[in-house]
Amino acid sequence: MPHVVVQYTANLEPELDMPALCRVIAEALIAQTDEGGKPLFPIGGTRVLAYPAHAYAVADGKGDHGFCYINIRIAAGRSAASQKRAGDAVLQEVQARFAQAFEKRRIGVTIQIDESPGQVYDARHSNLHPLFNR
Amino acid sequence: MPHVVVQYTANLEPELDMPALCRVIAEALIAQTDEGGKPLFPIGGTRVLAYPAHAYAVADGKGDHGFCYINIRIAAGRSAASQKRAGDAVLQEVQARFAQAFEKRRIGVTIQIDESPGQVYDARHSNLHPLFNR
Amino acid sequence: MPHVVVQYTANLEPELDMPALCRVIAEALIAQTDEGGKPLFPIGGTRVLAYPAHAYAVADGKGDHGFCYINIRIAAGRSAASQKRAGDAVLQEVQARFAQAFEKRRIGVTIQIDESPGQVYDARHSNLHPLFNR
Repeated sequence: MPHVVVQYTANLEPELDMPALCRVIAEALIAQTDEGGKPLFPIGGTRVLAYPAHAYAVADGKGDHGFCYINIRIAAGRSAASQKRAGDAVLQEVQARFAQAFEKRRIGVTIQIDESPGQVYDARHSNLHPLFNR
Repeated sequence: MPHVVVQYTANLEPELDMPALCRVIAEALIAQTDEGGKPLFPIGGTRVLAYPAHAYAVADGKGDHGFCYINIRIAAGRSAASQKRAGDAVLQEVQARFAQAFEKRRIGVTIQIDESPGQVYDARHSNLHPLFNR
Repeated sequence: MPHVVVQYTANLEPELDMPALCRVIAEALIAQTDEGGKPLFPIGGTRVLAYPAHAYAVADGKGDHGFCYINIRIAAGRSAASQKRAGDAVLQEVQARFAQAFEKRRIGVTIQIDESPGQVYDARHSNLHPLFNR
């Protein structure tokens, strides 16, 4: 973790470079540090997956509005302040990346962080993490 | 919010008009009121995104069964009674829309409402909400 | 329930038989029993949906790494021990199915079980469950 899922209306496709958005979100999270200056998240556990929805309904359906929902799932144990800094860092990237699209149409973007909601089991199987010992 | 995600097996595609299903779910939620008669949800925050899964496994795998999962994520603060009314309203639309498909095959539909599960950060970036001041 | 969603980077497509992975996950869950030897989950409620992400970012973005996230949502009421057995059974299948892919590239796989997180409403509409009275 963090595990980020971006769900968005497909009408935003022409206006957004989604692989680039995924990358800047990952970078924003990887750059976070805790109160002691140590990395807040593991590089090898950071991933962002984006999914356009081709069937959708937004608001009252009048006008070709867009929506983008960004969910960041993290493991438990980080301070509220560091969680807020992480969310704000993602928000800042999102505002920059969506600036042009916002000039063309009405769009709602929501960013939420969930801390291991209802989690009762957690397992990893990875040859990726060892690459990033820091 | 509400943020609705519909995940379904792709074998249901020919039998369901998914954009129409998204629209009636959105309308059912927008029409909800609280105990004081005020709108339960913001129009500008209501969105439904639907995702067919082309790889899937349902039950014991014998027979071309279908599944549809509808998750409605809402913000905290609404009464249990209003949450139930909202869920029931969506259920009613779903039952109507799936009636023909149910005659043709075995299908399971699950509708669940989650109230901001594990949420530790919440941000909006929107030029959509201002359209719908009510 | 259980409701399983597999989210993975599309670069894993050529190396994984995703319908087969969905099937073995479903079988692993259906085979689970509780402390009294009774089925832990209903056959008719077991479904696995897999979604490749064509836009994504993994770790530091250097190298064509893969990621696969498996989320298993279950209803409340099962013992911690049975939850762990269920998770471990899925993990074992995943390790077998990913063995070849792990030889070719760096991949992170995460498996998590959530127990009805934040759930405030739950409804079923199904002609599938009655097939599987056991």
